[in-house]
Amino acid sequence: MSNGKYLQLTEVSLRDGSHVVAHAFTEKQVRDVAKSVDDAGMHYLEVSHGDGLGGSTLQYGKSLVDEMKLIEAAVDECKHTKVSVLLIPGIGTIHELEQAHNLGAQLVRVATHATEADVSAQHIKKARELGMEAIGFLMMAHSVSADKLVEQAKLMQSYGAQAVYVTDSAGALLPHEVREKIRAMRKHLDVEIGFHAHNNLSLAIANTLVAIEEGATRIDGSIRCLGAGAGNAQTEVLLAVLERMGIDLGIDLYKMMDVAEDVVGPIIQGSQEIRKGSLVLGYAGVYSSFLLHAERAGKKFGVDPRDILIELGKMKVVGGQEDMIVDVAADLSKKAKAGV
Amino acid sequence: MSNGKYLQLTEVSLRDGSHVVAHAFTEKQVRDVAKSVDDAGMHYLEVSHGDGLGGSTLQYGKSLVDEMKLIEAAVDECKHTKVSVLLIPGIGTIHELEQAHNLGAQLVRVATHATEADVSAQHIKKARELGMEAIGFLMMAHSVSADKLVEQAKLMQSYGAQAVYVTDSAGALLPHEVREKIRAMRKHLDVEIGFHAHNNLSLAIANTLVAIEEGATRIDGSIRCLGAGAGNAQTEVLLAVLERMGIDLGIDLYKMMDVAEDVVGPIIQGSQEIRKGSLVLGYAGVYSSFLLHAERAGKKFGVDPRDILIELGKMKVVGGQEDMIVDVAADLSKKAKAGV
Repeated sequence: MSNGKYLQLTEVSLRDGSHVVAHAFTEKQVRDVAKSVDDAGMHYLEVSHGDGLGGSTLQYGKSLVDEMKLIEAAVDECKHTKVSVLLIPGIGTIHELEQAHNLGAQLVRVATHATEADVSAQHIKKARELGMEAIGFLMMAHSVSADKLVEQAKLMQSYGAQAVYVTDSAGALLPHEVREKIRAMRKHLDVEIGFHAHNNLSLAIANTLVAIEEGATRIDGSIRCLGAGAGNAQTEVLLAVLERMGIDLGIDLYKMMDVAEDVVGPIIQGSQEIRKGSLVLGYAGVYSSFLLHAERAGKKFGVDPRDILIELGKMKVVGGQEDMIVDVAADLSKKAKAGV
Repeated sequence: MSNGKYLQLTEVSLRDGSHVVAHAFTEKQVRDVAKSVDDAGMHYLEVSHGDGLGGSTLQYGKSLVDEMKLIEAAVDECKHTKVSVLLIPGIGTIHELEQAHNLGAQLVRVATHATEADVSAQHIKKARELGMEAIGFLMMAHSVSADKLVEQAKLMQSYGAQAVYVTDSAGALLPHEVREKIRAMRKHLDVEIGFHAHNNLSLAIANTLVAIEEGATRIDGSIRCLGAGAGNAQTEVLLAVLERMGIDLGIDLYKMMDVAEDVVGPIIQGSQEIRKGSLVLGYAGVYSSFLLHAERAGKKFGVDPRDILIELGKMKVVGGQEDMIVDVAADLSKKAKAGV
């Protein structure tokens, strides 16, 4: 098997999956997952509120346990795996970044909407000053052209980002679109390229393979698809596929299968199949974390959540504008009652 | 949106999904699914025991309701959708084919192991005599070369098959392997090419897209992934992806999403996520229907089902040799006890 150790995998279930469990991860769950993925040889483990550091608010959902406590617990369990955090400027602050760093987080992914890289400057610079790895994370990448993405990624590179991710927050990218975007990034950037998938159109694994083919070296997965919407590239499946392709990441496949079944499986309420809601999320091309909000708003206003999400997709609503979901639902409900 | 009506989609949940529900589909379930997919504009609906006509035996699992009764019910509900049946020579017979034809089945897929196309001759010829559409179905296509597959498909073509499928029974094919196989088939055959996916490596949708790109015109899906192992290309997801690509099959996406949620969802016991068992099935490259057998045998003999499946993959065990699963389990158990 070829040495695939140039590829760095980040396990995101304890961050992206926070959305699925309504931000209610317990310290024991985090310890169990951290200990077992560390034992299997995982490269990075991301731990934060689903919306990143500081996301525990009424707006985004209160965390059951303070994320700093969870980060500390993960660091405590990990002998080799490095702990990563997510930070969305505007939600998370420099102060929280310093706290996470002090607790042992070694990498931060600074996430902005695909057109707003400029708001990441101070956070990326601060992370580098602290001696952390700093990565830029361009969300909703499906909604902009490859040229625009390159322009924004270059900004992040100029701030000191050591890698920039194409982040398919909506799980809306098709394989040929991933190819075009990663290829353009690879051609025009000097730093590493990453790819973060969502599985709403059942393309997360395939899109990740395309990204690797085109030169991405940073990839993300979530065990049992424990991530927003239909989840991400399913970690244990991704490892099996890469092994079939002869690419060895140095992570133990059998152990990861067992973690999926025995450690993460019991955490999941319900299942991470592709259901009506997550499918329409990919189809409409809207932010993954909108799903639960749209379902709640749909219930409250008696509106089909699909119609809400498609409307939000048309309006190109971005992360941080979750309050608009209720407005859209109310509006659709009003129109329906008026027979429009 | 471009006209994709040259593509013919077969819904296989009521046949391939038979494995998932232990062959216990009720007449009401079949009527409900048939009526609703017909209303949505589905092209073909396959109804048979999971192992094809005549599969209701102690060996393959007894059907709760006689498949002929289910075929009759589906035909009765379908105004436009054509009812298809599966026949594996050696399990199903000419007599059962005639019965299904008399009840209104309009298409038969005659399935053989990828190296045994010659056993399909009389069934394909008979179907054509009866005025049915006849399609060849080369199972376990991952286990043979593209050249071998072309050779076998040409045999089926010579018998009168109007299309030949590349059937990824084990869900083990990678996208570049699908490309190579379909391309070779397209180049050397005069009849239509089909592709039947399984989702054990989370590649069913992506592989189906590759097959279409390479000229396959017959594709299969199962609503909610209701098929053996982790299921097939999830029908409602496939339709959404094709729509995003601008390909319109003339099937109503919203209606199919509703069928998935409201009609098929309640039929499924548990969930069709990619779990340990189905993943190893794709990883090991073994026949999908082996999964439940391996789990039962594993339980009986105290052996990890993964080890049984990987051993079967090495031995290139084919459909119809299910009795070997118990032998392998017993053997592994003996070796484990002997400390080998």
